Amino acid sequence: MNEGKERLRMALRLFLCSLTLISVTQAEDLLPSWADTTPKQAILDFVARVSVSNGKDFVPEHDRLAVFDNDGTLWPECPMPFQIAFVVDEVKRLATEQPELAKDPMVKAALEGDFKALFAGEKHDGFMKMMALTHSGMSSDEFAKRVKLWFSKAEYSPLGTSYGKATYQPMQEVINLLRANGFQVAIVSGGGVDFMRQFSEDVYGVSPEWVLGSSADVVFELRDDVPTFVKQASNLYVNDKVGKSVRIYQQIGRRPIACFGNSDGDQSMLEYTTIDNPYKSLGVIVHHTDGVRECEYDKKPPFSGKLITALEEAPKRGWVVVDMKNDWNKVFSSRQN
Amino acid sequence: MNEGKERLRMALRLFLCSLTLISVTQAEDLLPSWADTTPKQAILDFVARVSVSNGKDFVPEHDRLAVFDNDGTLWPECPMPFQIAFVVDEVKRLATEQPELAKDPMVKAALEGDFKALFAGEKHDGFMKMMALTHSGMSSDEFAKRVKLWFSKAEYSPLGTSYGKATYQPMQEVINLLRANGFQVAIVSGGGVDFMRQFSEDVYGVSPEWVLGSSADVVFELRDDVPTFVKQASNLYVNDKVGKSVRIYQQIGRRPIACFGNSDGDQSMLEYTTIDNPYKSLGVIVHHTDGVRECEYDKKPPFSGKLITALEEAPKRGWVVVDMKNDWNKVFSSRQN
Repeated sequence: MNEGKERLRMALRLFLCSLTLISVTQAEDLLPSWADTTPKQAILDFVARVSVSNGKDFVPEHDRLAVFDNDGTLWPECPMPFQIAFVVDEVKRLATEQPELAKDPMVKAALEGDFKALFAGEKHDGFMKMMALTHSGMSSDEFAKRVKLWFSKAEYSPLGTSYGKATYQPMQEVINLLRANGFQVAIVSGGGVDFMRQFSEDVYGVSPEWVLGSSADVVFELRDDVPTFVKQASNLYVNDKVGKSVRIYQQIGRRPIACFGNSDGDQSMLEYTTIDNPYKSLGVIVHHTDGVRECEYDKKPPFSGKLITALEEAPKRGWVVVDMKNDWNKVFSSRQN
Repeated sequence: MNEGKERLRMALRLFLCSLTLISVTQAEDLLPSWADTTPKQAILDFVARVSVSNGKDFVPEHDRLAVFDNDGTLWPECPMPFQIAFVVDEVKRLATEQPELAKDPMVKAALEGDFKALFAGEKHDGFMKMMALTHSGMSSDEFAKRVKLWFSKAEYSPLGTSYGKATYQPMQEVINLLRANGFQVAIVSGGGVDFMRQFSEDVYGVSPEWVLGSSADVVFELRDDVPTFVKQASNLYVNDKVGKSVRIYQQIGRRPIACFGNSDGDQSMLEYTTIDNPYKSLGVIVHHTDGVRECEYDKKPPFSGKLITALEEAPKRGWVVVDMKNDWNKVFSSRQN
């Protein structure tokens, strides 16, 4: 046993040595899609400070946790969050299979792209009904299959690529930079966790346990002696605003030292990450300022993702605000700039 | 970037080489506290099969997830689960600080060790009241401090050691064996997650995100501009029976290939792990058969942890049943045998 342990220790040491070698020789630009403006410098500076083992801001690897919002932070949420596009496409698919569904006025609204009707009312009852129709009543395996199929076929029209290729190149670079410096990366999104986990590994290299999202009840049963989870619509947990901080606390049980968001829905986790944190911390807000290469919005987002109070709070809290237009040389990997 | 990646790849390869070296030269006994009976052979055989990269039962490291129940599986639950001992000690502490508390008949019952009164009724209202008194209404930091203090001082009387030293040595060896072979180890317990996370790293080397347990609502707020989680008693999620499978699905999002439990409360996750799993899988039940070195029970446990249906199911499902008396040479590290 002790001999085995000793060898494991040696192997680990060898591995850590190699990692050190990597960071030392890393003079290359790890954020090439970022302009040489303040945000890039702030991110690089933060990562260097917490990673240098003899520095005063050093943070042990165990505690280097970075959390990212998804929609509007890692990929677009315009003209609409990708999951909403999935809902609409799924309603279309279901209505083809079961034409009687089209009698439902909300199904009709979805088929006609009448988002005003779908999102009417404070609780968006129409859309929630379509969510229930497309996200519950089936097994988790069946749902996973549907999402994967959609993801492999559907096209994000503004780019003419698959949705998975529509991520922000600068943010992918940040994820890689953090990982290369011993960070654990988690996605903390308002999107459905069962939806996101179908692509998070392929698209971001984030394994399912590091994806936190909205969810509802699930029933476990042995169906014909096969373990089966059946998705329900009851007890929806909306992973937004304070819900994000609570879920980080309950699920991960550790405090992040870096947080990336783009809306007031991320304000709570920005606060949790940066206020009164004994470790040096970093808060970043992606501000959608580029109406040419992407979309321009803050107070009046295309769907969700209002950015008002978090933007006001940013200077007071020392959060870095990324001006997409000026701070990103390139937005999407599939485009020249 | 590519150069950095290449170096990381090289470092990883070096590391993996060293690991291979370790497994190849591991003729030493990695389960020394286990008798050379069937369970030990079954565990060693399973681990070898899923870890050998050219074998037909090989499982990629990413999918080598093992889940363990805690009370009665990794450490004793007799004369009572450790968290119940904590509740009683906390009630005593609080009653010293606030003598008026003792007017409450349930506080009185706790002070007098009248467990019959505390656990009367189907919902154990008395005990749940004491849970609320000791587990809610305070900040998560305050609660963590209390648990840590208790853990550093309280003594597990059957052994005369701290509670943290009362783990089963054979199970610690299994955890080490699994880790040395690329497994991710998670604890999935009926105990409170906020309670367990205060010792899981020290006692089992399991970091907080891999500890799944019972929980209730938490409120996040900026209290005097300090991020604060306030523990509530509402919406208790009891992480037991099917709740365990559901939580594994929702929180980890991957299916275990190995599961260790000791009661009917673990049957659901044993089923989820082993039935119709495309990977080779292992289910293990720790059967408390040793009234001399530990405690002897199944149908009539001292508190919770009944073992009836899972034991009946074991032969049909191929679950390995560990007979503590005959299959463990040693139970606790702090004792000779």
